[in-house]
Amino acid sequence: MSAVLSIDPRTGASHGPVADESGPDLVDETVGEAFRAFQALQDAGRSGRARLLGAWADALEEHREEIVRIADRETALGDVRLGGELTRSIFQVRFLAGVVTEGGYLEATLDPPGDTPMGPRPDLRRMLVPLGPVAVFGASNFPLAFSVVGGDTASAVAAGCPVVVKVHDSHPATSVLCAGILRRSARQAELPDAVISLVFGRQAGVDLVRHPLVTAVSFTGSLTGGRALLQAINERPDPVPFFGELSGINPLVITPAAAGARGPAIAEGLTASFTASGGQFCTKPGLAFVPAGEAGDRLVEIVATSLSAASPYVLLNENIAASYRRGIDELTSDDAVGTVATGTGSGGDGFGVRARVLTIDAADLRPRDVEECFGPVVLLVRYRDGDDLPSLIGELPASLTGTIHAEEADRDLVVRLEAALRMKSGRVLFDGYPTGVAVSWAQHHGGPWPSTNSQHTSVGATAVRRFLRPVAWQNAPEFVLPAELRDGFDEIPRRVDGELRTPSTP
Amino acid sequence: MSAVLSIDPRTGASHGPVADESGPDLVDETVGEAFRAFQALQDAGRSGRARLLGAWADALEEHREEIVRIADRETALGDVRLGGELTRSIFQVRFLAGVVTEGGYLEATLDPPGDTPMGPRPDLRRMLVPLGPVAVFGASNFPLAFSVVGGDTASAVAAGCPVVVKVHDSHPATSVLCAGILRRSARQAELPDAVISLVFGRQAGVDLVRHPLVTAVSFTGSLTGGRALLQAINERPDPVPFFGELSGINPLVITPAAAGARGPAIAEGLTASFTASGGQFCTKPGLAFVPAGEAGDRLVEIVATSLSAASPYVLLNENIAASYRRGIDELTSDDAVGTVATGTGSGGDGFGVRARVLTIDAADLRPRDVEECFGPVVLLVRYRDGDDLPSLIGELPASLTGTIHAEEADRDLVVRLEAALRMKSGRVLFDGYPTGVAVSWAQHHGGPWPSTNSQHTSVGATAVRRFLRPVAWQNAPEFVLPAELRDGFDEIPRRVDGELRTPSTP
Repeated sequence: MSAVLSIDPRTGASHGPVADESGPDLVDETVGEAFRAFQALQDAGRSGRARLLGAWADALEEHREEIVRIADRETALGDVRLGGELTRSIFQVRFLAGVVTEGGYLEATLDPPGDTPMGPRPDLRRMLVPLGPVAVFGASNFPLAFSVVGGDTASAVAAGCPVVVKVHDSHPATSVLCAGILRRSARQAELPDAVISLVFGRQAGVDLVRHPLVTAVSFTGSLTGGRALLQAINERPDPVPFFGELSGINPLVITPAAAGARGPAIAEGLTASFTASGGQFCTKPGLAFVPAGEAGDRLVEIVATSLSAASPYVLLNENIAASYRRGIDELTSDDAVGTVATGTGSGGDGFGVRARVLTIDAADLRPRDVEECFGPVVLLVRYRDGDDLPSLIGELPASLTGTIHAEEADRDLVVRLEAALRMKSGRVLFDGYPTGVAVSWAQHHGGPWPSTNSQHTSVGATAVRRFLRPVAWQNAPEFVLPAELRDGFDEIPRRVDGELRTPSTP
Repeated sequence: MSAVLSIDPRTGASHGPVADESGPDLVDETVGEAFRAFQALQDAGRSGRARLLGAWADALEEHREEIVRIADRETALGDVRLGGELTRSIFQVRFLAGVVTEGGYLEATLDPPGDTPMGPRPDLRRMLVPLGPVAVFGASNFPLAFSVVGGDTASAVAAGCPVVVKVHDSHPATSVLCAGILRRSARQAELPDAVISLVFGRQAGVDLVRHPLVTAVSFTGSLTGGRALLQAINERPDPVPFFGELSGINPLVITPAAAGARGPAIAEGLTASFTASGGQFCTKPGLAFVPAGEAGDRLVEIVATSLSAASPYVLLNENIAASYRRGIDELTSDDAVGTVATGTGSGGDGFGVRARVLTIDAADLRPRDVEECFGPVVLLVRYRDGDDLPSLIGELPASLTGTIHAEEADRDLVVRLEAALRMKSGRVLFDGYPTGVAVSWAQHHGGPWPSTNSQHTSVGATAVRRFLRPVAWQNAPEFVLPAELRDGFDEIPRRVDGELRTPSTP
């Protein structure tokens, strides 16, 4: 077994070993323990799981300083960003405790017996139940929000599913630290620590996905990695649900009127968005449609100027830095692609890269230009006529987000742009920037492939739906029914005989 | 192109040709028209789609006699069963019109802007939108409920998705007849007839699944067929959601107390259930756990006796009949499997088979014995101790349903049996029989693989969820928002600032 090391991206130096790669027996044992914890999480009920999530939020807050310090050493994302990320994760854990307590997510539904044209209908009661142990693949770019700590873990455990995390090589020490905090906290809440556990190494990830007791797989990462896991899942005797959050170009459209009215402000907002955290956000706007002509030229110029002022960027790991450099080389190998600005370099032995602002004429856009290039680069696509935009958008692959910057007078165009971007994304933004994903009831972080597989979100209240399945009970005696489906239970929203009732419904 | 013939299972004689197999150009053209109809279905809104479904229900009722006659000639399922199936489908179409009108299925959610620990939160509004054109693979065994007419078509169109049906070889004339009725009805409702269209032939099915404009695939059929389609989907550049309803043994458990108290009644109910429509229901109880000892012996005897009285069974097509005979041969080649009763034969040139009641000792049960054998056969598994049942159930593959027959005194055992069957199925029934799937709000027809892929149903109100995906709008101007997300809209249930409100909420 190889040792797992913790690498400092600023210097390339390694710390550790942090752990050993997990062999097949250890993966099997870990999933077995998760399966035993599954029963405990169900027995804890909604209130017990909400308490656990609350305790996790407190424990993470208590260890904030140490978590941010180790995560910064491993990711070079900086204290401010990592502190914000932890705050967001703690907020999400508490938010999901509230979602579990509210109980609408169960979709509790009761149909009393009755007559139908097909004869008598039995008593039917339906609600969502947890799937079982879930495999979560930590993301390189969110060591505290899509990893051991994060939306996948929190929503799986909220739903009642224990989690086995395949640790990302980019932050093993952070992962070990966070898992220790969560496991201790679980024990203190008198739940098995195996509600969350870790495995290390690529092969362990494959073994995990193939394990018969694993009931769903959640993955945030590259399209290539996601497809490999999907393939492994489809080789199972029982293919389980796969929730991949993979890739996207996140187009941002600036109408001629918007460029004219507030081009400089948009230019600065766009630069801040595509360079945030070294451009290593899944919602990074990688493509911006900028009108040809003077207002557009001025906008491009300001993007270029604001870039020169930006610091050098240290990417998360050697692979990502190499892949970014390769992506830039491929893009700029096309004569149609021009370089508007190149950021400063970082020097040193770490994974530093130079940011880039590239430009192309809309007529020259090829499929290769609209693939995600992870890192601090934006491609500014100059177009001649706003009426061409909907069909240009129609040629793009799907993304998590699509953004429109427009003015009052653009109303007709905005209607067409919204329709085009809605077909190609899961969140449509107006006059904003797609980085920054609020945690709330109405949030959706997903979209048609390759952004995700369309139907589910990994952020917000409905993230729990990924880890649930419906069960119907027919003519069941009351004593086997979950409390939420028994007669007279009125603490959560339920649909009774077709009518949706809330706890406040008289 | 080969001609598509309509075969009479009672005689093996063919009628037709009904159509030609669809070449790749025709499949492409058909999906293209479906894509254009997608916009019309969205523009029609919920009220327009509810009206279309109502018109479909009326049109099907009007052509009842002809539909049942042609379907009987092609399937040999009999007028009574087919009349009932059509009644059920018409009920489901009307029911889904009500679901669309009620609007809760949209999961409309509005989060007003506000402050959070991470800074200001934008205005976010979320609801489910239709995916796009959907491929539906008709099932052999439900020519009127899971085919051109049926739950998949009705729920896709209710959601706003046009449907292209890959016609099942077993009932092409029924399919052409039904599609004609639905398409004329769509035109009369001033919608494109391409809201529903047909393609014929195995290769057309593969071309359909690979078509870039197809956004989801729904399939009811064999495990082998389902896996082949899943493989084709995963070879797409953009794997789309696959909803397969594939296979299941549907265990039925009879406790010693139940066998003692009402063994004869259970025996008759079980025989009626496993032989209904020639055992060609996906919910057919294929395995029944019967206690060893006198009460169990008596129960087995009555199953055998009621079988002898049953008519011969004509199966749906040559493949199914051959596969049934092969399945029986494989089961009975094991010395541990005994034959308790064999039904009468049908003679003639058609696809007639003899029903079977088989028996085995629980200790001898092998994996092969618990695979679905489609057709009129049940395997009675004799067990010695009720306490062994939960672990015996734990060894079974997952199914659509699991059934418990028990008595008042069995309470502790029932708790354990329910927990075991819930892990292995999507519907747990008490003192009933799994054939007969009520259409209602609380119904769930699904379960862990291989029954389906766990998370969605193909019967009941929530069947529409398969053909929807969430979209969030961030800081959107009112004029681009769907009506259901605008300020002040109060005709459907919505979650506003975290609080679920129904139209009746003050």
